[in-house]
Amino acid sequence: MKALIISENNQIEIVEKQKPHPNSNQVLIKIQAVALNHRDQFIREGKYPGIQVGTILGSDACGIVVEAGPDVDPSWHQKEVLINPNVDWGDNSKVQSSKYHILGTPSDGVFCEYMVIEPNKIIEKPAHLSFEAGAALPLGGMTAFRALFHHGNCQKNENVLISGVGGGVAQFAFQFALATGANVFVTSSDELKRTKSIELGAKEAFNYRDENWVKVAKEKSGGFDLVIDSAAGDGINDLIKLMKPAGRIVFYGATQGKPKNLDVHRMFWNQVTLQGSTMANDDEFKAMITFVKKNRIEPIIDSIRPFEEIADAFDKMKEGKQFGKLVAKL
Amino acid sequence: MKALIISENNQIEIVEKQKPHPNSNQVLIKIQAVALNHRDQFIREGKYPGIQVGTILGSDACGIVVEAGPDVDPSWHQKEVLINPNVDWGDNSKVQSSKYHILGTPSDGVFCEYMVIEPNKIIEKPAHLSFEAGAALPLGGMTAFRALFHHGNCQKNENVLISGVGGGVAQFAFQFALATGANVFVTSSDELKRTKSIELGAKEAFNYRDENWVKVAKEKSGGFDLVIDSAAGDGINDLIKLMKPAGRIVFYGATQGKPKNLDVHRMFWNQVTLQGSTMANDDEFKAMITFVKKNRIEPIIDSIRPFEEIADAFDKMKEGKQFGKLVAKL
Repeated sequence: MKALIISENNQIEIVEKQKPHPNSNQVLIKIQAVALNHRDQFIREGKYPGIQVGTILGSDACGIVVEAGPDVDPSWHQKEVLINPNVDWGDNSKVQSSKYHILGTPSDGVFCEYMVIEPNKIIEKPAHLSFEAGAALPLGGMTAFRALFHHGNCQKNENVLISGVGGGVAQFAFQFALATGANVFVTSSDELKRTKSIELGAKEAFNYRDENWVKVAKEKSGGFDLVIDSAAGDGINDLIKLMKPAGRIVFYGATQGKPKNLDVHRMFWNQVTLQGSTMANDDEFKAMITFVKKNRIEPIIDSIRPFEEIADAFDKMKEGKQFGKLVAKL
Repeated sequence: MKALIISENNQIEIVEKQKPHPNSNQVLIKIQAVALNHRDQFIREGKYPGIQVGTILGSDACGIVVEAGPDVDPSWHQKEVLINPNVDWGDNSKVQSSKYHILGTPSDGVFCEYMVIEPNKIIEKPAHLSFEAGAALPLGGMTAFRALFHHGNCQKNENVLISGVGGGVAQFAFQFALATGANVFVTSSDELKRTKSIELGAKEAFNYRDENWVKVAKEKSGGFDLVIDSAAGDGINDLIKLMKPAGRIVFYGATQGKPKNLDVHRMFWNQVTLQGSTMANDDEFKAMITFVKKNRIEPIIDSIRPFEEIADAFDKMKEGKQFGKLVAKL
């Protein structure tokens, strides 16, 4: 079978690998579509711990169960399924164990034609989604879901800001917040992304590179109950200024690095929360899929290409020009 | 009657003032004991907004109801009561309104012989407490209570660190966490304060000026579920290192100023909470008194002096040498 692996010198290449066989309590999945995350490109750039040459990359996939081991419920056979990318979250729903990682490094991932997996790690694809749309969901969807609901407690009619709406997780947070009935605002430095967000339901879209964006955002929104962010950096103080009293800032990344002078005085007087978040537990993965099904959410897809051209998707991810997920079809 | 006011040039002085009379829905309280908070000394130093010459200082007092207006439940008469120092918290239990302030600036406070107040702002003194001990409770007790329980969700058997245990709020947080059945650890740079904390039930007391205190604290505790802090500053990164995964840092002050390089990466990967807190709402004030009563908590008192010598208590507060509340008796 074909598989995309990490090879020497941080190169990626499609190679032939042995097709796996399920053991007695596994299923064999014929993968139909996969999608990229920034994580995959970071691994290609050598920016992740535990990278091993020969590992099959990728965490997000959608496929069909084509074989089931004898100990597996036979009703899984021929089911169209999504794959939960979590490995070893552990017993504590609040936080991952020290063994926790994501499919695709150091464990083999999903960028291949066939994979074997335990049935507790698959879930039926919502019927309204194509394979391509299903493949777009797992890692970004579950990360957004935990940040927005477990940590963020997003509620109907609240003012919610999604910063850097071009990102994969950010777009799911945007769609999930809209589906919850929140008043959703976004930021992006890219005019096209701002325009598209407004078309999709954002109340306002701000350019965080505009000098007076904080003032404008405050006027237009009246302040935010919740911000979902992955930039951190010095911009955190702008977010703190924009919070309503007792507002919550949840961040699942820090692309802008460490903030230099965190405005702790405003934080304690306004009883602001700054909450770190990462990934999601297995129950949240399932709850996210249920939420997507119930609200008939369609993941935003930038482009779909044949699996043979997946390296182009990595290049586009690196440039950051996409709006929506980069999908490859098998 | 005698009253301690703020006079010109940030001086304080005891002056003669007219004894107030309750209106129809107020009570008159003969104050028996008062206690100081850092806030009072900061006001003396001109470090607070809204300071007005002639204002009676002070937020913490205990007294006897000696007169009740005709619209007041007559059973209040002769009751020994504590005064709730909150003014205009507002309707949102989660956060104070923009009008919110504390007795003693800009409203007249409690450092005087008599005051009038609405009965919904007084609560019966727990029977196990003297007037002096009762006076020690209000502002520090309620601030600790909100930080520890509303924001901190302190639970039995959790590892809780109270940083800078010499502070008034910190000591209440320390006592309340002990009463909850938490494993309580403290920091102080003062050896005497560390020794006293151990005597009172701390598992360990660390000197945050020791170079390797973080390492030692990690070894001795295994990490903290909850930290109650009022320093912030660069030490926040030490606290972040010391948190168990999904740990909560609640801070109600920032005496060490803004942290320079907040370790956001560790925060999001460990799903750490950094939560600002200030004061407490009226329900929390009452719940704190109930908690003190139920657990027969005795506030730690540094010293008691006659009201005429209250300026000495301000001087001692400024030096920071006290362990426990500074109380004055009327």
